[in-house]
Amino acid sequence: MVLENIKEVNDIKNIDPREYPELADEIRQFLIEKISKTGGHLGANLGAVELTMALHLFLDLPKDKIIWDVGHQSYTHKILTGRREGFDHLRAFGGLAGFPKTNESECDSFNTGHSSTSISAGLGMVAARDLRGTDETIVSVIGDGSLTGGMAYEALNNASKLDTNFIIVLNDNNMSISENVGGVSKYLNAIRTSDTYMDIKDGIYYKIKDLPSGDKVVDSVRRAKSSLKQLMVPGMFFEDMGLTYLGPIDGHDINAMLKAFKEARKRKKAVIVHVITQKGRGYEPALRHPARFHGTSPFDIETGIPLKSTKAAYTDIFSTVMFKLGARDTRVCAITAAMPDGTGLKRFRNTYPERFFDVGIAEEHAVTFAAGLAAGGFRPIVAIYSSFLQRAYDQILHDVCLQNLPVIFAIDRAGLVGADGETHQGIFDLSFLSSIPNMNIMAPKNKWELSDMLKFALSCDMPFAIRYPRGEAYAGLEEFRAPMEYGKAELLYAEGDICLIAVGSMVETATEVRELLREKGLKCSIVNARFVKPIDEYAIKWASDNHRLVVTMEENVITGGFGQSVRNYMDTLEDKSKLINVALPDDYVEHGSVALLKKELKVDAESICELILDSRPF
Amino acid sequence: MVLENIKEVNDIKNIDPREYPELADEIRQFLIEKISKTGGHLGANLGAVELTMALHLFLDLPKDKIIWDVGHQSYTHKILTGRREGFDHLRAFGGLAGFPKTNESECDSFNTGHSSTSISAGLGMVAARDLRGTDETIVSVIGDGSLTGGMAYEALNNASKLDTNFIIVLNDNNMSISENVGGVSKYLNAIRTSDTYMDIKDGIYYKIKDLPSGDKVVDSVRRAKSSLKQLMVPGMFFEDMGLTYLGPIDGHDINAMLKAFKEARKRKKAVIVHVITQKGRGYEPALRHPARFHGTSPFDIETGIPLKSTKAAYTDIFSTVMFKLGARDTRVCAITAAMPDGTGLKRFRNTYPERFFDVGIAEEHAVTFAAGLAAGGFRPIVAIYSSFLQRAYDQILHDVCLQNLPVIFAIDRAGLVGADGETHQGIFDLSFLSSIPNMNIMAPKNKWELSDMLKFALSCDMPFAIRYPRGEAYAGLEEFRAPMEYGKAELLYAEGDICLIAVGSMVETATEVRELLREKGLKCSIVNARFVKPIDEYAIKWASDNHRLVVTMEENVITGGFGQSVRNYMDTLEDKSKLINVALPDDYVEHGSVALLKKELKVDAESICELILDSRPF
Repeated sequence: MVLENIKEVNDIKNIDPREYPELADEIRQFLIEKISKTGGHLGANLGAVELTMALHLFLDLPKDKIIWDVGHQSYTHKILTGRREGFDHLRAFGGLAGFPKTNESECDSFNTGHSSTSISAGLGMVAARDLRGTDETIVSVIGDGSLTGGMAYEALNNASKLDTNFIIVLNDNNMSISENVGGVSKYLNAIRTSDTYMDIKDGIYYKIKDLPSGDKVVDSVRRAKSSLKQLMVPGMFFEDMGLTYLGPIDGHDINAMLKAFKEARKRKKAVIVHVITQKGRGYEPALRHPARFHGTSPFDIETGIPLKSTKAAYTDIFSTVMFKLGARDTRVCAITAAMPDGTGLKRFRNTYPERFFDVGIAEEHAVTFAAGLAAGGFRPIVAIYSSFLQRAYDQILHDVCLQNLPVIFAIDRAGLVGADGETHQGIFDLSFLSSIPNMNIMAPKNKWELSDMLKFALSCDMPFAIRYPRGEAYAGLEEFRAPMEYGKAELLYAEGDICLIAVGSMVETATEVRELLREKGLKCSIVNARFVKPIDEYAIKWASDNHRLVVTMEENVITGGFGQSVRNYMDTLEDKSKLINVALPDDYVEHGSVALLKKELKVDAESICELILDSRPF
Repeated sequence: MVLENIKEVNDIKNIDPREYPELADEIRQFLIEKISKTGGHLGANLGAVELTMALHLFLDLPKDKIIWDVGHQSYTHKILTGRREGFDHLRAFGGLAGFPKTNESECDSFNTGHSSTSISAGLGMVAARDLRGTDETIVSVIGDGSLTGGMAYEALNNASKLDTNFIIVLNDNNMSISENVGGVSKYLNAIRTSDTYMDIKDGIYYKIKDLPSGDKVVDSVRRAKSSLKQLMVPGMFFEDMGLTYLGPIDGHDINAMLKAFKEARKRKKAVIVHVITQKGRGYEPALRHPARFHGTSPFDIETGIPLKSTKAAYTDIFSTVMFKLGARDTRVCAITAAMPDGTGLKRFRNTYPERFFDVGIAEEHAVTFAAGLAAGGFRPIVAIYSSFLQRAYDQILHDVCLQNLPVIFAIDRAGLVGADGETHQGIFDLSFLSSIPNMNIMAPKNKWELSDMLKFALSCDMPFAIRYPRGEAYAGLEEFRAPMEYGKAELLYAEGDICLIAVGSMVETATEVRELLREKGLKCSIVNARFVKPIDEYAIKWASDNHRLVVTMEENVITGGFGQSVRNYMDTLEDKSKLINVALPDDYVEHGSVALLKKELKVDAESICELILDSRPF
C-alpha cells in the first residue's frame, strides 16, 4: 500500500508521482471504509482527494497555511498530516474531530465549521504575514456552495486590493449540500460547460494577463454586450472584482493543479484558482445521492444503505406538518438556506414549489427575505439549524422583530448535536433569541407538540421561534396534549416537594429523573415549559408556592437562558422556594455522542438526580 | 413656492415638469435649513432629491413599494408624502423619525436602519406580490456603499433567477459614510469614468439586451480577455450574475431617470438601474466634508460649522489612545467597517496606514479578518458601533471566541444613542456578548478608564469587548483610578445600607443617585463594575454582605444583561441582601434625546432614586 508510507506531514513528497493515482484510490477506499463505520462527511472528502494531495505537494506545511472553508472536506488533509490512525474514532468523544482544529495539529491553521469564513481568515493571515515580513504561502480553499454566502463576497471585495500573493482555491463541485442556487452558480456552471473548458479539460489552461488587444476588438465588444453573456469568458466575474482568475482546471489532475498553483504563487495579487471536482467521486452511491452522503451515518459499503433504520426524527415530523400546513393555508411559505434535505423541506418543495425558496448558504438574506414576504401578507417559515441561525442574529432583531412581523423560525439541531462538535452545537439560541424584543420562543416536548406548536404559531400574528433537537423525535407522553395557549406551560405531574420545569428535549429527561427519584422514594412534579419566552409566570409561581425545590432544565448555555429568566421572575416572589438551574456551562462543547456529552456536562438524568439529592435538605 | 403645493403623496404629479428644478432647489433649501437646526443626515438626502422625485413621479404610492436601504436618504420621500411639517421635530422624542417607519406612513413599506437589507426585503415583497397575483411595482434603492455588505450580494445572487419584475436602483455616489473601498467600488468607479458614461452623460443610455452578435466578435473577445477588463463594459459584473443592467444614468436628470424606470418596468427580471448622484449636492460645505455631513449635529448654514463646540467624546479618547498604542506596540492593528471617521480611527490610519484596515460595510468579514490577523500573531482592535456589531454575532462566537483569539472589540455607541432611534440603539451588546464563551466584557466609567481598559485588554491574551457610549466622555471621578485587574470591580464609595453596582456610563448616573439620596438623608456605596464578564463575585458578595439593598445599573436590556448575571451569582449566597436590577425594558427604544429617553425608561438618576426609596424598608 502506498498509503502505508504516509506517516506524517510532507511524506507525500517522497511518493513517486506515478503512484499518485494509486494513493488517491487508497485514500478513497480508506475514507469509504472508515466513514461507513463512524459516519461523517463523505461526498466532499471523496471529491477533494487529488486537490488536497496537490496542495500538500505544492506547500511546505506547517509553515504554509491552508484554511479549509467549512472544513468538512479536510479528511484527506488529516490523513496526510499523520492522523490516519485517528479515523477509527472519528467524531467520537475524545477522538479525531470532523473539522480542522488548531489544537489537533499545527497543520490546521484555523478552526472552521460554518460556511464562507475562509477568505476572510486567509486575508487576515496574509496581512499578518506581510506585516511580519515572512514569506509563507497562504491558501484558502472554498467550495462553490460557500460562495453563495455574503461573507465570502465581502472578503473577495477586500481581496481585490491586495498587492501581495494570496491563493483562493475555488473547489467547484456544482453543489452545496444539495443543489446550488443563484446567479453565481449559474455563472460557474456556464464556465464549466463552456467550450473553453471542454477544449482544455485534459491539459492546463489559464488566463494570460497581458494579451495584446486592439481598438477594433474593443469596439466589437462594445457592440456585443449581450453576446458576451452567452460567451461566458472564464473568470470575468472575478476579474471584474479585481481578482486574478486561473482556470478552470481539472480538480482530479494533480499535475495540472500543481502547475496552476505555481503560476498563482507568482502573482502579487489575490488569485482565484478554479478547480472542477466531482463530489462523491469513486463511490457510486455517493455520486447517485450527493445530499445523503454529504454527511452520513454509518452505512453498508456494498449498497450505500444506512446501517440502522432510523426512527422518525423531528425533521421528519416537521416535514410532514409542513406538507399539511402548506395545503391548509396558502399563506404558508417555506425558506431554507441550502438545506432542503437536512431541514425536511423537500416534500414541501415538491408539492408547493411556488411557495418554496432555497436561497443558498445565505442565512442573513433568508431572514430578511422572509420579513419581506411577511410584510407582503404571507406566513414564511424559515428552517435553519440553530448554530447557523447565529449568522442572522441582526436580521431577526432588526428586520423581523422590530417590525413584529409574523415570521416563524423552525430551528432544527437545537441543543447538543453530537459528532459535529463545537461549531455545530445549537446551544446558544435560547440566549441570543431571548434578549430580542417581540420574539416568542417555544420548544416541544415530543413529536405531537412540534406539530401543535407550528399550528399555534401560525395562528398568532407575531414572530415565533420553535427549537427542536437533532435526531429521533420523542414519542412518549402521548397522553399529555393540552391545547396550546399563548405563554402557557403544561403541567404533566403534580406531586411531592420537587418541581422540574423542563424545556423541550429536557422534558423526556425530566421523566427519567422522576423515575430515578421515585426509586429513592421521592416524588416530583413536572412542568413542560413550552414557552421560553414569554415565561409562564403563573406556572412558575405555582411551582414555587407548592414545592420546596424548583429545578429548571434546558439544553442551552446557562447565561441568558431559560433558567435565568425563571430566576429573575422568582426573585420577585415574596416567599419563594429554592431554585436550581440545570443548563450547559458557559463553554464550547466538543464532539462526541449526545449521550456521552450529556453525562460529561451533567445534564443527563443521573447527574440531575444526584444534584437534587445533594441539595437536600431544601 | 412650488413646495407649498406638495401637501400629500402624489401631489408631485400635479406639478408642471418645468418646475421640477425649482422644486428640487426648494427641497434642498428646506433640508439644509431644517437639518441645520435639528441635526440629521444631510449629504445623502441632498444627493437623492431628484431620484426621489423621479420615483414618486414614476410610482403609484402607497400601492407601489419603495424600500430605502439604510433609510437615512428618505427625507425627500417624507416631504413628498405629507410629512413636511414634521421636520421641525425631526429625530426628537415623539417627532418625525430619521428613518422610514411603517407606523409613520403607509408610504413607508419597510423599516430600515442597518445597511444592505433592501434587496432581500424587496425580493420578499416581490414573491408575495406574485403569489397574490397583484401588480404593484417594487423598488429597492441601495447605495454603492451598502453594496459592500455581503447580505446585498446574497440577495443579488437570488435576484438573478427572477422571471418577474423587480427594480433595484443603485444610487451611486461613490461614497460610503467615508470613502468607499474594495473591488466593486473600483469597478463602479470605472463605469463612472468610462467613455461610455462620459458620452451619454447629458442623455440617457441603456444596454439593449438583444444586440446581434457574430462569431468573429466572440473570437476577438476570447483573445482579448484582459483588455475587456480595461474596457469595463457597463454592468458586465451584474449581467454576469444574471441581472439586467440599465445605466449609468445621471441621477439629477429626472427625465432620464423616468425613461429608465419605465424601461426597467418592462422587463420580467430583476433590473439594476444605475444612477450616478452627488452626495451633498447643492450645499458647498457638505460637498467639501462628506463624512462630517453624512450625519450632522446642528450647524451654521453660512459656514457649515457645528453650532456648539463639542466636548471630547469617547470616540476622541479612543482616537488618541489608539494613536499612542500604535506607536508603543507594533502588533496593534485597527479595523473599521466603513467608519474611519465615526469610530475615531482616522488618526491611526494616517499614522500607521499599513496596520489600518477599512473593509467597507462588512462587519462579518471585519471580525473574521481580525481573527486571521490574531492567529497570525497580531493584536487587532475592531471598532464597530454596538448596533452594527450585531451583524457579526456568529463570527465573534465561531471565529474569535471559539479559538480564544486575542481580538479586542471597541464598541462605540453602546447604550442609548438618541436621535437615530430603534435601529441604532446599542442596547443589546451586553446580552449577546455575555452568552458567548471565552468573551470578556468591560465598560469604562470615564475617559481615563477607557484608556486604561484598552491597555489592559492588550496586555491579556484573550478576546475582549470594551463598550462605551455615544457622545461626551465623562470626565468626573478622576480621583478614582485603581489599577486594572482581571475580573475585578472598583470600589468608589463605601457607606450606608445601599450599594449601587454600576456599569460604564451608569457610574456617572450612580454618583447623581448618590447625591439625590444624600439629600434625603441616605448614604450609599458605589461599585464601578468595570467587568460585565466575568463578574466580580468577590465585590458582589461584599456588596451583599455589607448592605441591605444592592442595585445594579446598566444601559442594556434587562434580559441576559449584567444584572441577571449578578442575580444568578447572588442567589448562590447563603444570606443575601435584596437586589434590584436597573436596566432597559425588553423592548425597542424610539428616537429622542438620550436624557429624555432615560427619563422615559426610568433609568435616569431621579427615577432610580425613587425606585430605591419606594423599595424601603429593605
